[in-house]
Amino acid sequence: MSSAACIFCKIIKGDIPSLKIFENDKVFAFLDIQPLSRGHALVIPKYHGAKLTDIPDDSLTEILPVAKKIASATGAVDYNILQNNGRPAHQVVDHVHFHVIPKPNETEGLGIKWPAQTTDMEKLKALHEELKSKM
Amino acid sequence: MSSAACIFCKIIKGDIPSLKIFENDKVFAFLDIQPLSRGHALVIPKYHGAKLTDIPDDSLTEILPVAKKIASATGAVDYNILQNNGRPAHQVVDHVHFHVIPKPNETEGLGIKWPAQTTDMEKLKALHEELKSKM
Repeated sequence: MSSAACIFCKIIKGDIPSLKIFENDKVFAFLDIQPLSRGHALVIPKYHGAKLTDIPDDSLTEILPVAKKIASATGAVDYNILQNNGRPAHQVVDHVHFHVIPKPNETEGLGIKWPAQTTDMEKLKALHEELKSKM
Repeated sequence: MSSAACIFCKIIKGDIPSLKIFENDKVFAFLDIQPLSRGHALVIPKYHGAKLTDIPDDSLTEILPVAKKIASATGAVDYNILQNNGRPAHQVVDHVHFHVIPKPNETEGLGIKWPAQTTDMEKLKALHEELKSKM
């Protein structure tokens, strides 16, 4: 399943060139050409879907072993794996993609802001019951 | 394989209580008690390892289908999947963990800084050759 308008589907087909580093029947990986750091790469399912919840499990299972292989090949000691869903969450291309982003120093690589909330055990317990019932 | 000193291994064993939302033979998931947003949860392999590259593929394959299930259960429209490796990359607990973080609005959830570098095609092509040879 692919989308004619999707730039990543075009990359998978070879209609748009890419710096491909891995491909199998479910997954495609290539270098990000606007990297946050040396070695910044993307792992994508060939199955077209905008968000994680749109991708079948038999494609999702293939992604992390490839991300691991890339992280290892870059030689990075510190790195982030990131997958964004939706514009407010910083997603720009609407085809699921996992970033592998080496973090060589403070200024290069992914920058993270962590606005942790105060622990509210009562609220968390109520949420816990709700989520368990929906899993 | 587990580590006696690891807080997440203790959570998996039940020696430290947690708000568990999923468990199978390879994977464990629970609510983050210092959430960035409502529904912030962690998916971890039962296999103890500090970084992605330390985890066997047969554990890695199990993680994303569970993250997807959680994202769906939270009802979040926008969300981030994040896995940090190393202190400079914002990792605090040295047992691989994937954050599922709903992004309900601009202030709650994960904050991202994206210091994109200028595209240097010559450097990228050299890196491309190097990574391909190491994959």
